[in-house]
Amino acid sequence: MTDPTPRRAPAGAAVLREDVTEAIRAAVFEELAAVGYARMSIEGIARRAGVGKTAVYRRWKSKLSLVLDLVGAFAAQGLPAPASGSLYGDVRALLEVASHALRHPVASQVIPDLLVEAARHPEIAETVKAVLLDGQQGVMTQIVREAVARGELPEGTDPGKALDLAVGPLYWRLVVVRTPLPKGYLDELARSAVAALRA
Amino acid sequence: MTDPTPRRAPAGAAVLREDVTEAIRAAVFEELAAVGYARMSIEGIARRAGVGKTAVYRRWKSKLSLVLDLVGAFAAQGLPAPASGSLYGDVRALLEVASHALRHPVASQVIPDLLVEAARHPEIAETVKAVLLDGQQGVMTQIVREAVARGELPEGTDPGKALDLAVGPLYWRLVVVRTPLPKGYLDELARSAVAALRA
Repeated sequence: MTDPTPRRAPAGAAVLREDVTEAIRAAVFEELAAVGYARMSIEGIARRAGVGKTAVYRRWKSKLSLVLDLVGAFAAQGLPAPASGSLYGDVRALLEVASHALRHPVASQVIPDLLVEAARHPEIAETVKAVLLDGQQGVMTQIVREAVARGELPEGTDPGKALDLAVGPLYWRLVVVRTPLPKGYLDELARSAVAALRA
Repeated sequence: MTDPTPRRAPAGAAVLREDVTEAIRAAVFEELAAVGYARMSIEGIARRAGVGKTAVYRRWKSKLSLVLDLVGAFAAQGLPAPASGSLYGDVRALLEVASHALRHPVASQVIPDLLVEAARHPEIAETVKAVLLDGQQGVMTQIVREAVARGELPEGTDPGKALDLAVGPLYWRLVVVRTPLPKGYLDELARSAVAALRA
């Protein structure tokens, strides 16, 4: 095995190892954007990162685990805790974060790729789902719980349905339809989601 | 060029040519399900259909035009004209058709594939969008127009937003979240969509 980090400088080596990890992460995003998940190879990633294949395999056991790791870190970041004091405010805050995330290249390119893999390989579907959805489902469960406590939603409101109604239209619009959002559209969607939830 | 249809039997040849076209269509769906759009090749399709590559290229100029042709025919079929006399009834009928379509292998596997291609190749995004969305957008425009005429929706309601609110939650649930729909869920979604549209 060849290792790009020099053996004789422990402190420097630690820094370099982190640099290599970061270079690989950056290379993965570039490869995904350029060729897509299906055509992407560990070899191509290593070449782009300027490291050996071994350096990649030492860190991640497969292409899939590498991508899931990156997407998981991306999906978890920036999700708001419900703090506005109203159902409308909490849903609006979630839509704000989701709309930024869904316009990021990770979402617009990599997530559809992962869903394609999930559709074809049921064994990875659960992992993909967990990575993509657990954070959002957790936040929506909290939003619903607090709205029920305030009397804004009936007892027993299903957080899964709430997520469908709040995030579904935005996902459809940004990932499937792909036309620009008119000004004020997130406000309208949040208002609509609240009305839909109370229907 | 080799041709699987015999040159000397014009009537039989016409039948055979149609059989070949059908065999290719069936092979495309099988290949898509087995290996996905990105890994699928004209060669693999021809092999599965038991025809020469030439027989495929004589009918479609590329893998993409072949798949778009098939998906377009699938997407156009079965869309209801609004006929229920109420916004709820019309939205419910659209959701019924959409929920069947989204659970069909064409939708659950091929459409995500096409969206991946569209995200990566802006030049094909318009075609994919037209093939997938034009039919639904046409139906929703009619539904909104009649609901406005009946006084169920305000003048100037945007059919694009109506489609986001009606179909978005179902798409998200069936294609992204992929958990089973509880009994009566389409009724609830239709009711929610009507409330969302009137909010």
